[in-house]
Amino acid sequence: MKEVPVPSCELLSVGTELLLGQILNTNSQYLSSELAGIGINCFYQTTVGDNKPRIISCMKEALSRADVLLITGGLGPTADDLTTECLAEAFNVPLIFDETVMERIEAFFRTRGYKMPETNRKQALRPEGSDLLPNPRGTAPGTIWVIPPALLRKGGITNPDKERIVMTFPGVPGEMKTMWKETAEPFLVTRFGDNVLWSIELKQYGIGESALAEKFAHLLELENPTVAPYAGRGECRLRVTARAGSIAEAQQLAQPIIDEIKTKSGQLLYGTNDDTLEIVIGRLLTEKKLSLAAAESCTGGLVSKRLTDVAGSSAYVRLNVVTYDNEAKERLLGVRKETLEEHGAVSKECVIEMAEGMRKLANADLALSISGIAGPAGGTEAKPVGLIYIGLATPTGTTTTKLTLPSHISRKEIRYRSASEALNMVRLYLLG
Amino acid sequence: MKEVPVPSCELLSVGTELLLGQILNTNSQYLSSELAGIGINCFYQTTVGDNKPRIISCMKEALSRADVLLITGGLGPTADDLTTECLAEAFNVPLIFDETVMERIEAFFRTRGYKMPETNRKQALRPEGSDLLPNPRGTAPGTIWVIPPALLRKGGITNPDKERIVMTFPGVPGEMKTMWKETAEPFLVTRFGDNVLWSIELKQYGIGESALAEKFAHLLELENPTVAPYAGRGECRLRVTARAGSIAEAQQLAQPIIDEIKTKSGQLLYGTNDDTLEIVIGRLLTEKKLSLAAAESCTGGLVSKRLTDVAGSSAYVRLNVVTYDNEAKERLLGVRKETLEEHGAVSKECVIEMAEGMRKLANADLALSISGIAGPAGGTEAKPVGLIYIGLATPTGTTTTKLTLPSHISRKEIRYRSASEALNMVRLYLLG
Repeated sequence: MKEVPVPSCELLSVGTELLLGQILNTNSQYLSSELAGIGINCFYQTTVGDNKPRIISCMKEALSRADVLLITGGLGPTADDLTTECLAEAFNVPLIFDETVMERIEAFFRTRGYKMPETNRKQALRPEGSDLLPNPRGTAPGTIWVIPPALLRKGGITNPDKERIVMTFPGVPGEMKTMWKETAEPFLVTRFGDNVLWSIELKQYGIGESALAEKFAHLLELENPTVAPYAGRGECRLRVTARAGSIAEAQQLAQPIIDEIKTKSGQLLYGTNDDTLEIVIGRLLTEKKLSLAAAESCTGGLVSKRLTDVAGSSAYVRLNVVTYDNEAKERLLGVRKETLEEHGAVSKECVIEMAEGMRKLANADLALSISGIAGPAGGTEAKPVGLIYIGLATPTGTTTTKLTLPSHISRKEIRYRSASEALNMVRLYLLG
Repeated sequence: MKEVPVPSCELLSVGTELLLGQILNTNSQYLSSELAGIGINCFYQTTVGDNKPRIISCMKEALSRADVLLITGGLGPTADDLTTECLAEAFNVPLIFDETVMERIEAFFRTRGYKMPETNRKQALRPEGSDLLPNPRGTAPGTIWVIPPALLRKGGITNPDKERIVMTFPGVPGEMKTMWKETAEPFLVTRFGDNVLWSIELKQYGIGESALAEKFAHLLELENPTVAPYAGRGECRLRVTARAGSIAEAQQLAQPIIDEIKTKSGQLLYGTNDDTLEIVIGRLLTEKKLSLAAAESCTGGLVSKRLTDVAGSSAYVRLNVVTYDNEAKERLLGVRKETLEEHGAVSKECVIEMAEGMRKLANADLALSISGIAGPAGGTEAKPVGLIYIGLATPTGTTTTKLTLPSHISRKEIRYRSASEALNMVRLYLLG
């Protein structure tokens, strides 16, 4: 198959707080995923602290390897925000002061009724020869800099004959994303529109990574498109990636593989790319004009939260309850005292009554219930941490599922997987 | 002040799925934070794909700069899991086959009733001269390798006279964390116990990053301890970091600064380190033997989920409801039809009745209510996306808060910040 050269990019995240583990680097994931979407390869992501020599050395190393460098962080007003300064220093060019940017920053503070701190003046600086990367949401604009060979040579960059592109973004995810979408992405698409990589994720629920890999072993050997399995949080995904001269060609190349996976997966396959179980359920409920309610115990509102994460979920969610104690289960859902005394709250009998009671309380077509032991405390020999019962009441009857999750996984993970299992029960019911 | 040399470490995350943005790299945050906790500096985090030459080059570069290299990912059974192989190749040593490990892996599959796939055999390999880093939770064990100068020289490592340590972990967070806690961390603490870095985060709610930075500007200049401000998700933190010969000395050095920040912050300071608003509230509710209930609309269960994220929250949470539609607000909480007609569900009047109704329904000491427009749709001129009302009913009356969050932030972020504000209202009430 034809191999098409693809432009390469690196990500550099700047900030000591990242190196201390005080914040999670979600920017790298976002930008990597966006780059993959427009067919630009990302081979390295690097994180460095607020330290001038180290930042400069990372910039030069990345530009020696890649066509494009995206830098997030270090654009703030304080003394440890060094990105702009380092970029100018790396190529020995002066910083220029942009009056228009300064006015915009001053206006930003004025309209919010604050006096601009003096330190914000540095946010109007950028390396000579670079362009503005506007930030509609905050004070710190970024830079787009197409660095010419002469400067690359001066900076000691390997293979300096080809221009390099550097873009800087603030570390605040919301600001970075807007800047990416409004300016950076269109710029790169225009520049590198020729060679693309297209990929799709086929998401599965109800199969483990090893089993998935064995089932599709013959596909994992392919070179273009490639197929790779991933796992996490109780779910599995197969990623199909094709390279070609255009998105359309790449899609065409991938289609037979996608079709094969779809056919062999059946109902294990619940969606693609950004789909989540809750989005897929939302779609099915809306289509079928059905409503869903949930009565949660151990998941504490997580099922409700996930259902309503979906914009437009008010079309099928009216009322959910978190009956964390037994009295609430009895009073609101009509779970019988005897059921609780004989079988306990973590039992098949209890989740049946919870689901049926919830269906009545919310006057909903379908109602879920969950009761279990999320830990870390509260487990016993007979009912260990990780034991979860789920009920689903429907117009035609109530079904239940029993989960025994490994007790060593965290409370958070036990709750998440229980919620996923509950959502998947609804999905399978709706698929018929 | 005395400057003490601190051992340095780098993190290398291996996996093409990270470079494609398909999974979020939480491992780097976890390990960075753990390293900071035991006084080991982390200057770089690198992410690389499943590519042999690139992995080897990252390994060599990191070991040329740092004393310790922690590698996550690439230990799985499939052909694109290359970490062990690359490590052996980087230093030109053979891979040895560990029979004991093999037996353990076979037993792992046997006890779960599965046949071991043939590909799992490679997980019993490790570079000659290295030790086992046991994985109690999965099939892929890791490696601890103290690489001697002779091998470092052979591998072309800069400054080869000092031994280097490499540890490998699977990419699955739960397995990695257990291996870190049970084996890797004790190993490093024993080896590098001499020079430490100690840090604490002082978490604030209700002040912006710039205001915080200005308020404590004189502290941000310090060199040991250092003080740095961070912001995210509507909250701010000040990190105080001290270096010294022992944890005790470092703490002593930091104490006067911590005291000053505490005094000047007053009730803005809600906790330290791993504290969250929900943990702090949980502590206060338990102390005062009070219960809390929540009636949510726009947050859809997120307040309930966050409250019950805290282990032991069943002591003060009994019942929460998500009254997503108006009929449910009327029927369960007794919100009056006239209130909804005159003022709408997103109004001060509605959240007062919701909170008071919830307090009765749950028979709780305190009850929160939230109603607002989380978007992206549903906003109007008069009631734009980001408009949120929160009510708090207490034995002595009901108070409300109105939030106008910027409409450009995401639905997820609007919901998160609304929930935080609600939790903070409870905190301030409990502080009196």
